[in-house]
Amino acid sequence: MPEPRTILIVSDHTGLTAENIARALLAHFPTQPMRYLRRPFTADVSAAQAVTREVQALAERGERPLIFTTITRADVLTALQAAPAEIFDLLSNGLGVLEREFGVPAVREVGRHHDMHDTEAYLSRMDALDFALATDDGIGDKQYGLSDVILVGVSRAGKTPTSLFLALQHGVRASNYPLAEDDFERTGLPLPLEAHRHKLHGLTIDPRRLHAIRTQRKPGSRYASLEQCEHEVRRAERLFQRAGIPVRDTTSASVEEIAAGILAALRAG
Amino acid sequence: MPEPRTILIVSDHTGLTAENIARALLAHFPTQPMRYLRRPFTADVSAAQAVTREVQALAERGERPLIFTTITRADVLTALQAAPAEIFDLLSNGLGVLEREFGVPAVREVGRHHDMHDTEAYLSRMDALDFALATDDGIGDKQYGLSDVILVGVSRAGKTPTSLFLALQHGVRASNYPLAEDDFERTGLPLPLEAHRHKLHGLTIDPRRLHAIRTQRKPGSRYASLEQCEHEVRRAERLFQRAGIPVRDTTSASVEEIAAGILAALRAG
Repeated sequence: MPEPRTILIVSDHTGLTAENIARALLAHFPTQPMRYLRRPFTADVSAAQAVTREVQALAERGERPLIFTTITRADVLTALQAAPAEIFDLLSNGLGVLEREFGVPAVREVGRHHDMHDTEAYLSRMDALDFALATDDGIGDKQYGLSDVILVGVSRAGKTPTSLFLALQHGVRASNYPLAEDDFERTGLPLPLEAHRHKLHGLTIDPRRLHAIRTQRKPGSRYASLEQCEHEVRRAERLFQRAGIPVRDTTSASVEEIAAGILAALRAG
Repeated sequence: MPEPRTILIVSDHTGLTAENIARALLAHFPTQPMRYLRRPFTADVSAAQAVTREVQALAERGERPLIFTTITRADVLTALQAAPAEIFDLLSNGLGVLEREFGVPAVREVGRHHDMHDTEAYLSRMDALDFALATDDGIGDKQYGLSDVILVGVSRAGKTPTSLFLALQHGVRASNYPLAEDDFERTGLPLPLEAHRHKLHGLTIDPRRLHAIRTQRKPGSRYASLEQCEHEVRRAERLFQRAGIPVRDTTSASVEEIAAGILAALRAG
C-alpha cells in the first residue's frame, strides 16, 4: 500500500467546488490512499502565503502534496503557485476560453458560485426544502397538488433522503407517500394519489437491505422482520406495475443517482 | 442583452460534477444569459452520438453551444467531440497529470464519484441525515452527546437547512437547539447545552429578514412581528456573547457558506 498522499483543497470561498472536482478526479485512482486538508476562505495573498508555508513544511518532510484550487484572483493564485507542489488550477483555463467566447472579461470576484448571488435560485431551493420537511409527516391533497414529484414507497425505502436532496441540491419540490397495508388492499392507486399519476415515482429496495435498515431502527420488531419486508416490497412492486408507475431501485444507488434519474425523467416528460 | 447561450451538461453519470464546474465558471460572466440542457447518463457511444446530433441541429439554427463534460471513456468522448461546439473536457487533463503523478492508470469507469463506491462515507452521510431529522423536533441530552455540532438560534434563523446540509453534504452530525423565552431569563447557558459548550455554534439573523421569513409562515402573528423578532435576536446575541459562543450571521449567507464556516472552525478547533 503506498503512503497516503496529501490533497490540499484551497479555495477563496467554501471549497465545495474544488473538493468536488478533486474527488471526481481522484476517484479514478482507488488504490491510492489520500489525506485531505481543506483550506477554505483563502481569499487574500497573506492567506495564500500561509498555505504555501504549510506545503513547504510538508515538502521538507519529503512529501509531495497535490493542491486543487479554484482561486481566480491573479495575485492570490501567484502566491499559491510558489508552493512546492503539483497544482491543479481548476478554473483559470476555462475562464480564459469563456472570455474569448463571450468577448467580455470574467469578473473574478470571490465566491460567485456558492453565495446567494443568484437569489431566486437560492430561495427556490430553501422553499423546496421547507416544502419537503412540511410534507414529510403525512399531508393533505393540497400539498400533493403543489409538488413537482411524489415519491411512493414503503417505510425506509429512501423517500426522505431523496426528497431532501432534490430540494437542497435542485430546488425541486418533492413529497412522499408512504405505502401502508390499506394501500395494498385496493386495486387502484391510493386515493390521495389518483389525481397526480404523472408525478409519481416509485422507490423499491431489496427486502434484505430493508430488513437491515429497519432492524437498526427497531430491532426484533415485526416491522423489521425479513418476512414483513418481503411482503411489503412484493406488494409495493405489484402496485407500481399495475399502476404503470416508473420505479427506481434504491438498494445500491446513492441519493445523487436516484435524484438524477428522477430529474432526467421529469425533464424528458 | 445578448442572446441566451445554450450550455450542455453532458455526463456519463449524474451530471452533478459537470454542472457544478460549469456553474463555477459561468458565474464569472453575470451579464451573459444562459440556457441549460442536461444530458446525464450519456454512457455509451450511441448516447454521445444522440447529443452530437442535437448540437448539430442547434448549430444549423446558427447557435454556438458550449458543452461541459466529465466523460472519461475515450470512445464516448471522441463521439461527443464530433459536435460543432466549444467543448470543455473537464477531467481528461487532470487524469493525465494524476496518472503520471501516481504511476498507475486511471480506472476511467463510469460513475466513480457519485455512486456508493465509498460505502463508508456514504453511510455516514445517510446516518448523519437520520440524526439531523431525528433531532429536529426537540431532543434529549443523549443526542447532544452524540452530535458533532449543536446549532443554537431563535426559530427560523437557519438551523434546520444548515444541519441538513452538514449531514447530506459533509456527513457531519448536527443537532439544533431552538432558543425560547425561558432561555433568555437565565444568566448562563440553557441547561441542556451546558455540558456541550465546545460544540455550540450560534446563528443570528437581521431582525427585518427574520420578520419577513416568519411572516411568510404565520402572517400577522405576534411570532412574526418585527418587534418580537428584534427582541429575540437581541437577546440571543447577548446570550452568545455572554457565553462566548462563536456566531454566524445567516442574513445573506447561503447554507453552503454557513456550513463551510462551521466546518472550518471544527477542523481548526
